Amino acid sequence: MRIGILTSGGDCPGLNAVIRGAVLNGIKSYGHEFVGFRDGWRGVVEGDIVELPRSTVRGISKQGGTIIGTSRTNPFEGENGGPENIQKMMDANGVDAIIAIGGEGTLAAAKRLTDAGLNIVGVPKTIDNDLDATDYTFGFDTAVSIATEAMDRLRTTGESHHRCMVAEVMGRHVGWIALHSGMAAGAHAILIPEQSVTMEQVNEWVLQANERGRAPLIVVAEGWIPEGADEAYSDRGLDAFGRPRLGGIGERLAIDIEQSTGIESRATVLGHIQRGGVPTAFDRTLATRLGMNAVAAVHDHAWGEMVSLRGTTVERVRFEDALGHLKRVPQERYDEASILFG
Amino acid sequence: MRIGILTSGGDCPGLNAVIRGAVLNGIKSYGHEFVGFRDGWRGVVEGDIVELPRSTVRGISKQGGTIIGTSRTNPFEGENGGPENIQKMMDANGVDAIIAIGGEGTLAAAKRLTDAGLNIVGVPKTIDNDLDATDYTFGFDTAVSIATEAMDRLRTTGESHHRCMVAEVMGRHVGWIALHSGMAAGAHAILIPEQSVTMEQVNEWVLQANERGRAPLIVVAEGWIPEGADEAYSDRGLDAFGRPRLGGIGERLAIDIEQSTGIESRATVLGHIQRGGVPTAFDRTLATRLGMNAVAAVHDHAWGEMVSLRGTTVERVRFEDALGHLKRVPQERYDEASILFG
Amino acid sequence: MRIGILTSGGDCPGLNAVIRGAVLNGIKSYGHEFVGFRDGWRGVVEGDIVELPRSTVRGISKQGGTIIGTSRTNPFEGENGGPENIQKMMDANGVDAIIAIGGEGTLAAAKRLTDAGLNIVGVPKTIDNDLDATDYTFGFDTAVSIATEAMDRLRTTGESHHRCMVAEVMGRHVGWIALHSGMAAGAHAILIPEQSVTMEQVNEWVLQANERGRAPLIVVAEGWIPEGADEAYSDRGLDAFGRPRLGGIGERLAIDIEQSTGIESRATVLGHIQRGGVPTAFDRTLATRLGMNAVAAVHDHAWGEMVSLRGTTVERVRFEDALGHLKRVPQERYDEASILFG
Amino acid sequence: MRIGILTSGGDCPGLNAVIRGAVLNGIKSYGHEFVGFRDGWRGVVEGDIVELPRSTVRGISKQGGTIIGTSRTNPFEGENGGPENIQKMMDANGVDAIIAIGGEGTLAAAKRLTDAGLNIVGVPKTIDNDLDATDYTFGFDTAVSIATEAMDRLRTTGESHHRCMVAEVMGRHVGWIALHSGMAAGAHAILIPEQSVTMEQVNEWVLQANERGRAPLIVVAEGWIPEGADEAYSDRGLDAFGRPRLGGIGERLAIDIEQSTGIESRATVLGHIQRGGVPTAFDRTLATRLGMNAVAAVHDHAWGEMVSLRGTTVERVRFEDALGHLKRVPQERYDEASILFG
Repeated sequence: MRIGILTSGGDCPGLNAVIRGAVLNGIKSYGHEFVGFRDGWRGVVEGDIVELPRSTVRGISKQGGTIIGTSRTNPFEGENGGPENIQKMMDANGVDAIIAIGGEGTLAAAKRLTDAGLNIVGVPKTIDNDLDATDYTFGFDTAVSIATEAMDRLRTTGESHHRCMVAEVMGRHVGWIALHSGMAAGAHAILIPEQSVTMEQVNEWVLQANERGRAPLIVVAEGWIPEGADEAYSDRGLDAFGRPRLGGIGERLAIDIEQSTGIESRATVLGHIQRGGVPTAFDRTLATRLGMNAVAAVHDHAWGEMVSLRGTTVERVRFEDALGHLKRVPQERYDEASILFG
Repeated sequence: MRIGILTSGGDCPGLNAVIRGAVLNGIKSYGHEFVGFRDGWRGVVEGDIVELPRSTVRGISKQGGTIIGTSRTNPFEGENGGPENIQKMMDANGVDAIIAIGGEGTLAAAKRLTDAGLNIVGVPKTIDNDLDATDYTFGFDTAVSIATEAMDRLRTTGESHHRCMVAEVMGRHVGWIALHSGMAAGAHAILIPEQSVTMEQVNEWVLQANERGRAPLIVVAEGWIPEGADEAYSDRGLDAFGRPRLGGIGERLAIDIEQSTGIESRATVLGHIQRGGVPTAFDRTLATRLGMNAVAAVHDHAWGEMVSLRGTTVERVRFEDALGHLKRVPQERYDEASILFG
Repeated sequence: MRIGILTSGGDCPGLNAVIRGAVLNGIKSYGHEFVGFRDGWRGVVEGDIVELPRSTVRGISKQGGTIIGTSRTNPFEGENGGPENIQKMMDANGVDAIIAIGGEGTLAAAKRLTDAGLNIVGVPKTIDNDLDATDYTFGFDTAVSIATEAMDRLRTTGESHHRCMVAEVMGRHVGWIALHSGMAAGAHAILIPEQSVTMEQVNEWVLQANERGRAPLIVVAEGWIPEGADEAYSDRGLDAFGRPRLGGIGERLAIDIEQSTGIESRATVLGHIQRGGVPTAFDRTLATRLGMNAVAAVHDHAWGEMVSLRGTTVERVRFEDALGHLKRVPQERYDEASILFG
Repeated sequence: MRIGILTSGGDCPGLNAVIRGAVLNGIKSYGHEFVGFRDGWRGVVEGDIVELPRSTVRGISKQGGTIIGTSRTNPFEGENGGPENIQKMMDANGVDAIIAIGGEGTLAAAKRLTDAGLNIVGVPKTIDNDLDATDYTFGFDTAVSIATEAMDRLRTTGESHHRCMVAEVMGRHVGWIALHSGMAAGAHAILIPEQSVTMEQVNEWVLQANERGRAPLIVVAEGWIPEGADEAYSDRGLDAFGRPRLGGIGERLAIDIEQSTGIESRATVLGHIQRGGVPTAFDRTLATRLGMNAVAAVHDHAWGEMVSLRGTTVERVRFEDALGHLKRVPQERYDEASILFG
């Protein structure tokens, strides 16, 4: 078989380990050939293909990003999009099946294409860990590690200056990165989109930590807003391209805390460093296994399925069982974490 | 309640996070008090106790080792050992229950003591990840991370000198650290106690990697010996204290590979650096949760049970269901990994 | 002798290693006693003093921040400020001499106080490395390391998405951190306050890198503005406290690059993570030596002098020879670096 | 011009940054061409050459090892060795000049070849920092960082088990790595080849630290032996190839300390991990500058000179002024460090 691989959506540490795992297992176990579609679905609809012989995946599992590029192209748009055109492209290039590595959007597109008869299996990718039907997604552990290490650094500055430090981490819709990095770093409050919290409560946690002689450390996911506030709360307006500016909530929160508590407060927006660079060992092992298992799924013609971590086992899940709803931080996990607040 | 905590056996990154999680949850959720037994069961049988108010656990979750010390003392030995003496010591110090953090030996002792009527719950601790009834134990992820990072370093030296690099990692009886770090680092062979492999096979993997222009990287768990060899294979004799010298297998293996293949080979024994220092974010979060849940188990009088990670959930398991047999690397996990060898 | 130590101004990795080096050398070589003034000059003018016996400096050289706190208090202000009041406070507390660890402002104050007859020696502290008469200041190497590691991460994201990544680092007045981290990370342009560069030139470097298939990486010190622009260029206005908002130049630059070149661009503001956490080995060794030598300077009654690194040697420099002008990146260092741009 | 580059002797983090700095500066400033000799002098005497266009040095400054390989071949040996043969090889391949990156042996060979009329400039490389006429050599800072981080890890294990931890670091003839990493890690004794110390003194330092409740941390350079001992002291005999086994002194020392003091002691031999992997930012910047300046030296026909760091400046030094004697740790540096022992 000749198998095409694509990586789509935001980049994520571990993508290259998936590619390497797939290519090595495919070549060594089954004698398959591999190609990469450049920049996700863009390479599919445009037939922009690069050969992936064994030598191209040499040593890449510890490399961040994706060697085949990524984009947010929608495979149903444009004159070459849609299942018929894509099947033609596959036929023209001798591609028998596709391994699509991506998040909710990518996998939903993959589902529509498999429903239309295409040979596609999926590998879930979301740095936010918000996909259902999988315990963890690769990249999440790396993001949590980077955020935790950054907070360890912020803490010593906070203690020296008797400041409240606010760390804004990724998470527009779910708070997994905030929850895990906040627990690991010993934060005095963790604020996530799933949980409505008043500013009064936030300030109380800040004051409690301060009264015990600590420099309060507050972790906030980018999608959180205080109870009662509307989205304008963290709005920093649009940039010159009409895109919403990033980094609103952290800075706004630091200002509000300082005004309410009188404790000097500073915000840090971790931003893109959370998603780049060398993946953790955890993510490299997980991603390698997912890539290997994706090839086995192709071999078994398990179209419309994705590979997924359950406990310590890699299993297969049908797209429809994973898609359509975010995996949010459950109430009991937040309750557990919040015992440590203040 | 007044709860005593002990850490026993080899130290492990995350012990302090367990202690902190337990103390904070106990104080904040239930109003409990805490003491620490110094140096594991030694502190129990000798009544060597230190108070653990909230201030003592401040900021310790990122600190390696254990603030209350550890040892390999057996609580059934000595004139003050055994359940009756220990109960007396508890009564004398007003200790209502014990949280015992330790591995197979510690938990087996805890089981015997609970069978004799003592109030004990357990937290599993094994850097080797060899305890059953739990997906992962804290400390394991840190050990794998350190080993992987070390191998990333060894690799560039190997490539520059066209050498075969042998990395010896922990694992006398099981190969989990070798398996995970070897997969993460892209090793050309992983040798673990569970799997019998001939030197011919090892040399073949080395030569295959070499023929592709790679510097072979071999990971070996300390307890592995080649098929057909006896334990004298890696024997470096006894040191001046009559203890078996460490680091036998790695060096012996490098010599044998060099002799058989003609490829210059070097061994590195990672040793104690695998178990010290700052825990990974994964281990800090896991350990914090285990500590918090151990206190809940005490609150529920769940004597004879330990807390355990299953998927993403912390559950309780009876000691007898976790003890008595090592959690070995299963055949399918080794088969999966070995596809990548050579 | 009884010696008081203070740390003043922005915190900096290595402050604790200076304190430890001073205390240990003072106790072991000369039998001195030590106290710390809490929060810099505030502790001096308010007589807020903490004893610093040997046990308080145990293990602190790897700890970021400062165990005695810091602030920006001016010792000449307030009713208890000025040399006479400070001498009274010293007499009242039996303090014979002061070791002042701080930057330009702190050392200038120390100079005025020594001119008035007080017993003070200095240790230069500036994370920006902008003090004259010393090759490097501690903390700078740590800041450069953190910034470099962050850029290594940004780079893989940039390559995967074919974006231009802009990293904003510290440096309001000088570009040392940008220069060193930019060279270490292989940046395609380094923009520093000392050097006037047009946006046309910046865009040309971006396009050159892009044409070679690279994701352009641009490092900008927070104090840079393009040639011809005024300070309003990077102005994001004031926050609710009337303080200028941080992070202006990076975001503005990314927007301008994207508009001019058509290459998608993203900014990351590294912010406070550059100055916290575990110091590098270089900074720990340097800071320890400076602390030890500061005590020797006290012993020699070298009032009005500071300790300083020259090559590999710690020397003494009179305050007046170090103060009064910033150590800027010299033209030849920028010319050297700029060969690598584009 | 067409310039050949070689890397010779033990690998060292930063070699690739030197190569990149040379190639980029040569191409961009002067329009030179570059080739690499594979595996040091072996590539020279065998004419084993690889072209080094700009694309080959892309992104390599953060990569450990050397992309052109290294070996310990002596260019004066063999039938193709010696100045005349090498000049012929250079002529045959159109190579106008050589940049030789290596240590004492490499530079001594380069000196003999330049004395015979060949066009060679040098870049000093020694991870041990033992070359004279340069403040620091690249790779040293990385080795010190890795050793320091390892000791931070060993320390928490030592404290938890109340053990004495012995860390053996590189340094057969000089103790720079031990000195710097030991100061950075806060070691209770640093043992280096330059300094004769009795076992009684070592044991006293161990006991002093122990009495203050610390877990003693002892750093020993591999070339140290106790005063009065002969080389057999740390002899672990020869391996199957007749090579002296590594790791003798650390283990022997731990045994002797335990026997004399009764304190349980453990040794860790850091070995090859000290010289591989990602270089520190300090080493990347230094190595890049050295490579750039080496090309300028070629441009100036500065044959027989090497580039060297003095303070913050890169200067040129004649081979004869740098060679012939080791740069040892001076007495005053050891005295300074030893104040902190015990």
